[in-house]
Amino acid sequence: MSKPAKAQDATWIWYPGDFEVRLHEKASTWRRARGVAYPAYWRLDRHYSNVKFRYVYDLPQEETIRIAAEGRFSLYLDGRDNSRTDRSEITLPAGRHEIAVSVFNDTEIPALYVSGDRIRSGPSWEATSYQNEWVAAGAWTFDAPEAGPSTFRLSVAPQDPVASEIRGGHALLDFGRETFGYLRFHDLSGDGEARIYYGESLSEALSPEACVTVDRFDAGAAATRSVEGLYTVEEGKAFRYVWIHADPGVRWEKVSMLYEFVPVTYRSAFECDDAKLTEIYEMSLYTLHLNTREFFLDGIKRDRWVWCGDAYQAFLMNYYSFFDLDVTRRTLVALRGKDPLTTHINTILDYSMYWFVSLYDYYLYTGDFAFIRQCYGRAVSLMAFCLKQLNAEGLIEGRPQDWVFVDWADLDNTGAVSTEQILLARSLEAMAKFAALMGEDDDAAAYAAQAEEIKAATLRLFWDETQGGLLHHRVAGETKPLMTKHAGMFAMTYDYLTPAQRESVIRNVLLNPDVPDIRTPYMRFHELATLCESGEHDYVRREMLSYWGGMIALGATTFWEEYDPKLADDAHYGMYGMPFGKSLCHAWGAGPIYLIGKYFIGVKPLTPGYGTFAVEPHLGGLTWFKGTVPIAGGEAEVDMNKARIRVRATRGGGLLRYREGGADKEIPIPDDGRWTEVEWHERA
Amino acid sequence: MSKPAKAQDATWIWYPGDFEVRLHEKASTWRRARGVAYPAYWRLDRHYSNVKFRYVYDLPQEETIRIAAEGRFSLYLDGRDNSRTDRSEITLPAGRHEIAVSVFNDTEIPALYVSGDRIRSGPSWEATSYQNEWVAAGAWTFDAPEAGPSTFRLSVAPQDPVASEIRGGHALLDFGRETFGYLRFHDLSGDGEARIYYGESLSEALSPEACVTVDRFDAGAAATRSVEGLYTVEEGKAFRYVWIHADPGVRWEKVSMLYEFVPVTYRSAFECDDAKLTEIYEMSLYTLHLNTREFFLDGIKRDRWVWCGDAYQAFLMNYYSFFDLDVTRRTLVALRGKDPLTTHINTILDYSMYWFVSLYDYYLYTGDFAFIRQCYGRAVSLMAFCLKQLNAEGLIEGRPQDWVFVDWADLDNTGAVSTEQILLARSLEAMAKFAALMGEDDDAAAYAAQAEEIKAATLRLFWDETQGGLLHHRVAGETKPLMTKHAGMFAMTYDYLTPAQRESVIRNVLLNPDVPDIRTPYMRFHELATLCESGEHDYVRREMLSYWGGMIALGATTFWEEYDPKLADDAHYGMYGMPFGKSLCHAWGAGPIYLIGKYFIGVKPLTPGYGTFAVEPHLGGLTWFKGTVPIAGGEAEVDMNKARIRVRATRGGGLLRYREGGADKEIPIPDDGRWTEVEWHERA
Repeated sequence: MSKPAKAQDATWIWYPGDFEVRLHEKASTWRRARGVAYPAYWRLDRHYSNVKFRYVYDLPQEETIRIAAEGRFSLYLDGRDNSRTDRSEITLPAGRHEIAVSVFNDTEIPALYVSGDRIRSGPSWEATSYQNEWVAAGAWTFDAPEAGPSTFRLSVAPQDPVASEIRGGHALLDFGRETFGYLRFHDLSGDGEARIYYGESLSEALSPEACVTVDRFDAGAAATRSVEGLYTVEEGKAFRYVWIHADPGVRWEKVSMLYEFVPVTYRSAFECDDAKLTEIYEMSLYTLHLNTREFFLDGIKRDRWVWCGDAYQAFLMNYYSFFDLDVTRRTLVALRGKDPLTTHINTILDYSMYWFVSLYDYYLYTGDFAFIRQCYGRAVSLMAFCLKQLNAEGLIEGRPQDWVFVDWADLDNTGAVSTEQILLARSLEAMAKFAALMGEDDDAAAYAAQAEEIKAATLRLFWDETQGGLLHHRVAGETKPLMTKHAGMFAMTYDYLTPAQRESVIRNVLLNPDVPDIRTPYMRFHELATLCESGEHDYVRREMLSYWGGMIALGATTFWEEYDPKLADDAHYGMYGMPFGKSLCHAWGAGPIYLIGKYFIGVKPLTPGYGTFAVEPHLGGLTWFKGTVPIAGGEAEVDMNKARIRVRATRGGGLLRYREGGADKEIPIPDDGRWTEVEWHERA
Repeated sequence: MSKPAKAQDATWIWYPGDFEVRLHEKASTWRRARGVAYPAYWRLDRHYSNVKFRYVYDLPQEETIRIAAEGRFSLYLDGRDNSRTDRSEITLPAGRHEIAVSVFNDTEIPALYVSGDRIRSGPSWEATSYQNEWVAAGAWTFDAPEAGPSTFRLSVAPQDPVASEIRGGHALLDFGRETFGYLRFHDLSGDGEARIYYGESLSEALSPEACVTVDRFDAGAAATRSVEGLYTVEEGKAFRYVWIHADPGVRWEKVSMLYEFVPVTYRSAFECDDAKLTEIYEMSLYTLHLNTREFFLDGIKRDRWVWCGDAYQAFLMNYYSFFDLDVTRRTLVALRGKDPLTTHINTILDYSMYWFVSLYDYYLYTGDFAFIRQCYGRAVSLMAFCLKQLNAEGLIEGRPQDWVFVDWADLDNTGAVSTEQILLARSLEAMAKFAALMGEDDDAAAYAAQAEEIKAATLRLFWDETQGGLLHHRVAGETKPLMTKHAGMFAMTYDYLTPAQRESVIRNVLLNPDVPDIRTPYMRFHELATLCESGEHDYVRREMLSYWGGMIALGATTFWEEYDPKLADDAHYGMYGMPFGKSLCHAWGAGPIYLIGKYFIGVKPLTPGYGTFAVEPHLGGLTWFKGTVPIAGGEAEVDMNKARIRVRATRGGGLLRYREGGADKEIPIPDDGRWTEVEWHERA
């Protein structure tokens, strides 16, 4: 008798979304302000502690299964809930039966692992939180019975400092560039205290009274916790420099660190004749990578929190670099959290809407409908929550308790803010798309109609012919004369303007020195993308060189939360009233990944999951570049100079678009990875 | 300089309701089925893990405070959230300042204790879960810094068995009556396993294969966990008998138990010429006491869960015995849980409505508006949830996923069930009352109007003139001919019937042998109360003697979940397909407390909190009785025989009501505890 063919391997399962919710709850409490807890200031949702799993099998013969659980479990068959077992090995009877397993765990998520010849836990099992719902169980890559989801942690690798010296009698270490991880003391001995002052900048590390993160430990106690002669500090930190003050009796052989990271693959590349721009691209990748963690963080020193507006951009950058969908999905699930909705995501009105737009982008770049389906119910309720805030004119307004953010700038965001209307229209378009995918055609039509209404109302009520752009806000039925760049940018990005309006926004708003400058990389991201959409690649290249290049000139090894070239010396490091309050490794600083990938290398999906896609490269003032961008399951590569374009892709559906002889050209890109080459000539 | 007068002592604080929610989460997982976990099968809500407290002070001089927290805390002043401290002692500056303390705790509730000369944590502090709400902090009796809310446990006291023998070679212990607690082995030694078979009845303990609860431990491992020679088993159990099987090498000196209980005061008493009825009353008190625990349980062996329909009755019994408001409030908060509402309380439609009725009773018996205010928001949302289920005729119906329970009986509860309408009308009356107390007059009027509508519709659509009562249910616009007792009982209790209808329900429904009998003490409670309301005390007394007395005759030491005199021998113990499935200590079995207290001793509040109250005693066929009932802050006592009534009360507002010479009499009861005596004569 031959053994039956192996079914799919067993994997740990849980209530879908709860892995992310629990991880987010923990990660949102890791921020420290000078060693003191600084948890996120929004409601942190929690996993269900009481969960049941079920699976119906039909076995030709009895089978012995092994059961592991994180939490206290009990198993019963065919609804006989008074006949339960919690043995780790049982024999299932042949025939058709329903297995039910209840698992309770109030510290980590209730999780289950069942393995037999044919019966194996996996996403084909269902889960309930006892709310009359049975949903496909959550699962990921936890395939070993001894390593359930509670054992999850990021990867680590030891690293040594690149330089060390004694400064003011204390060890000062330089790890060469911004990093994240756990300091390690080798052969720690003696009695007394050690105090560690961390710095993203040298100045910060050398400021014991003002540096943002610190550590402190008792050497004697720490030595007893050493493993193979190594004491690793408990909490990970963001830093480049550390200055270690220790009491006289404390000794160590050396200090190194355990770098902590997500092992992403760098699937994009960019090289060009301008070494500075190449460097900006690479530093952007590293900046994004450091912030690509359990979730996409805003910054690794501060806030170490998951902000939806920041994540929206990180998602886009990620599609043009690592294409790591795990961290994207984790972030989207964590941000949405659970019901009931009482506040907006991160307390910010715009941030609720970036969630829809981000989910829309996710579908466009990946084509992953299963994830949309998983999120759909919570998307519907979030949209219902947003739409409760429409005013009498049908425009969305912040409630008194809402934060209407738009940008770090001195903006008056009272009343109905035009940017919020544009984001809502786009969110409704996203909902229309999701509803259609779900087969909810009536809802799709209703969402689409409401999107059109809000778009039309916004252009009618905010467009100012004299100034040639969208005004900022409307209070009590009166549009105020203030002009800002934000609404115009988003309206262009989402293609809500006529060609004449687009042209006017470019000239009269974005490139108009009288309209207030945008100073955060956060909104520069959108501003520069918009300018690329309008063919201003050369301008954007020069802006990248001056803005991001400016940070490099000041010694940056990752890009910052904010940069104002007018500041002097250490004043660059201050923010929020703290001399070193600024985050020097901020995800939104990595925007060049997206700008270069989407607008210079020029790759973008035309249909979901790169089923079809365009490659529309631009030199933008460069002499040549070579670039690679991930396209879902493969890569597209471009090699361009002033005379010719070469392109290849590892999958079909690609179209090379370029201009030659004053005409738009479009040719298909082979699906087998072979190079295609065309001639072209830059216009004089 | 004199020390300032002490302010109120410091006490632990937390997010209001979370102590109860967390305790309920844990308690709902303590049930075991033959040693295996059997958690409640509804969503278990969870405490907020991320909470902030605040307090504004104005100090004439600086003051040093000590801070303790359960969880990781950080404190800052005046919104300066980058300047946090987690030191356990700090000095607060003089003047007016706001203290903010964030506490994170994902295992037990985040809790805070602050003590200084003037600054002390207490219910005047506020708490937020970061949902734009600041609410009065929760607090109770945790006044010592070293004993926060996570240390809560019930009281314990050692008890010895009243008898022990060797049966079949194994120790068989009898603790004399039903009890709850932890077995203890004195001087345990030797190697091998011990297996404990618990029995609420002797037959159950002597049935190793069928008893509902079991324990099993390794003697060697257990001995190492002994404290002062005593090994206490980990989990508490309900039992009277234990049969202990041990491997040959296992030895102990003796076995005792640690009785676990809430230290209530028995504030009621009843004694009469019928020793059996006196015994029934006392056994009822003990039955209720055993089920008065972290919450009012249904039964201490099974389910050990908090069911709202069961609690509704336990609340009423408690007002006539222990008047323990702590367990009442804990139970009401735990039952309501948190939003979002997706299922009814305990998944049962009627049980959502008993919650409103119970809260109404709580206010009537205690006058405690503060608790109503704390619950009001969640009452509003629960009512909104219920009202979504009105059908086209304005009647409430169960959704497909709802359990429409009414009673353990073979009832067809499809369509609109009349009992549910009556409960909804009463719930809306309760909401009208709460809204009025909250000053929400428009809402109060709307709730009251809707209550009237549903009452009117119910009497119009369900009253059957031919059968003379309320029919059971109405399906697709057609009232079915089935007559049951339930709706009539509730309609009488809530005074929804005309005198003629009342009379008809008594004669044609309740006392009509052709209408199906009620067999559970659960609904007998309401049935017998209704009969008392109609002056059928003598009938009720005889029913108590036969029904509850019948259980005593079978050896009961506490009252059962269900009793059917027609069963033989051990068949009494079976239920749910299990030979010993029946709970022999079930809260709803303690109904005589309420029947005797309210209708024989005859005490009831007329206005909230016994501001005014009636004492309307009835001998109901007895020769004499003496009885005491708690009346909020005091007691009322009655001493009655066939010739005279004596009554006294420790507070004013009381009215003695009796009949004499064919006329209703009413005289005030003195407020100083002196006896008042009146003559009366029973009608022939």
